[in-house]
Amino acid sequence: MDNLSNVLDAISHPSRRAILARLAEGPARVTEIAAPFDMSLNAVSKHLKVLEGAGLIHREKQGRDHVIEINGAPLNLVTTWLHDYERFWSQHLDRLEDHFKEKRRKS
Amino acid sequence: MDNLSNVLDAISHPSRRAILARLAEGPARVTEIAAPFDMSLNAVSKHLKVLEGAGLIHREKQGRDHVIEINGAPLNLVTTWLHDYERFWSQHLDRLEDHFKEKRRKS
Repeated sequence: MDNLSNVLDAISHPSRRAILARLAEGPARVTEIAAPFDMSLNAVSKHLKVLEGAGLIHREKQGRDHVIEINGAPLNLVTTWLHDYERFWSQHLDRLEDHFKEKRRKS
Repeated sequence: MDNLSNVLDAISHPSRRAILARLAEGPARVTEIAAPFDMSLNAVSKHLKVLEGAGLIHREKQGRDHVIEINGAPLNLVTTWLHDYERFWSQHLDRLEDHFKEKRRKS
């Protein structure tokens, strides 16, 4: 998969978006991330792997713990895609407007 | 799944983004959508179902054909999420800056 697809897939799950929101408040250990959620540590670990694969988090080993930190940079891929898309979209709306103008003119 | 999750899941696949880009140029029949892609009609139909489930397209029956039209509105959910996120993210960067300022002050 390309990077944009990986990022979109990673953020498509509500639990993973909730984890990102938690990490936006500051780095945290896996147990700290899991605490507010009704999820097993195992489930949280799987979600973290998906986020890591998309480059949205990185982890640092501190003694026996893994401290997880957010990396928002790959979200720029989504912003860029949406912007490109809005351009397409507004061209589409322009054409639609022309279409209705033409219709009005004819009637 | 919530709407935002559905939309993100729908656009996470490169073929579905390519289909949306094609539809941004104007409405099209399923066969017309499939033509430029190295995909079976069946594969395209499956992708269209996912896009439809996310509200990103709608289809209109014209005689024996289905004409597919894009609906960009649900993409606003993604834009909103990213904006909320950027707010979190910039707060995080502010705190990081404070952290380094404090470190510099102490050294």
